Amino acid sequence: MKPLSSKHSSNANNKFVLDERLIIDTYFITNLSLCSILLMNDARYPWIIAVPRRNKIKEIYELKSRDQLLLLREINLVAEIIKSKFESDKINIGAMGNIVPQLHIHIVGRKENDPAWPAPVWGFGAPLTYEKKNATEIIINLINELQTSP
Amino acid sequence: MKPLSSKHSSNANNKFVLDERLIIDTYFITNLSLCSILLMNDARYPWIIAVPRRNKIKEIYELKSRDQLLLLREINLVAEIIKSKFESDKINIGAMGNIVPQLHIHIVGRKENDPAWPAPVWGFGAPLTYEKKNATEIIINLINELQTSP
Repeated sequence: MKPLSSKHSSNANNKFVLDERLIIDTYFITNLSLCSILLMNDARYPWIIAVPRRNKIKEIYELKSRDQLLLLREINLVAEIIKSKFESDKINIGAMGNIVPQLHIHIVGRKENDPAWPAPVWGFGAPLTYEKKNATEIIINLINELQTSP
Repeated sequence: MKPLSSKHSSNANNKFVLDERLIIDTYFITNLSLCSILLMNDARYPWIIAVPRRNKIKEIYELKSRDQLLLLREINLVAEIIKSKFESDKINIGAMGNIVPQLHIHIVGRKENDPAWPAPVWGFGAPLTYEKKNATEIIINLINELQTSP
């Protein structure tokens, strides 16, 4: 078996490949029309990452107009599901990419009693990784929600 | 003269009123079709805040579809101007609202040698406030850019 770094840096036929750091830090949930939807491996908050499956895009404005509309729709869909299913007090949305340049959008459900509140979650303490079975339960629920939404 | 808190809490006729905390922390730049555009009073980074002039909206998905499209367009416009005029390496976009509930979107130009890089700017150190004349110069330039953009 080839090492990860070799496996993920080969992209000769322009196929979209998730950034390796995103693969390491998340569980895969599902693919929507534009974005791969990932669960951040941090049980402190319901924290989803949406990654448009387009190569060489670092900023939202670099996406084609049609893709921007899809991105908006998919962010909203995820945000509303998080808000409703996790009874979040507030949704935090962020597109930074200072460390992982591949365009990805954080969608995080916040509660007024969560560890970082009211600070942003980014850079706050160390992740509390999921037990695999707990992550799986959340993932299965989210797949159902995402597939039954209009 | 009435105290600030009284002045800004009176909103009987449903007129849009900027959150007082945003007024305190920023300089006003201009109004676009949907958003008031503000300059964060922190000279460490080119940091713009876009505030949709709609009452009682806390999440992007609560905006009407037409307003969501305007918001996307205005965020992109500001992001591209920052990227170009301040030669930013990366644009950071964030919608949190954990402290100020009125929907507002941060659009921040980042450089690889700025004080917080690669961490997000939120909660990083204390603001370095502008000298009024320096803020004014940036504001005049941004007004020109925003008004001449398609």
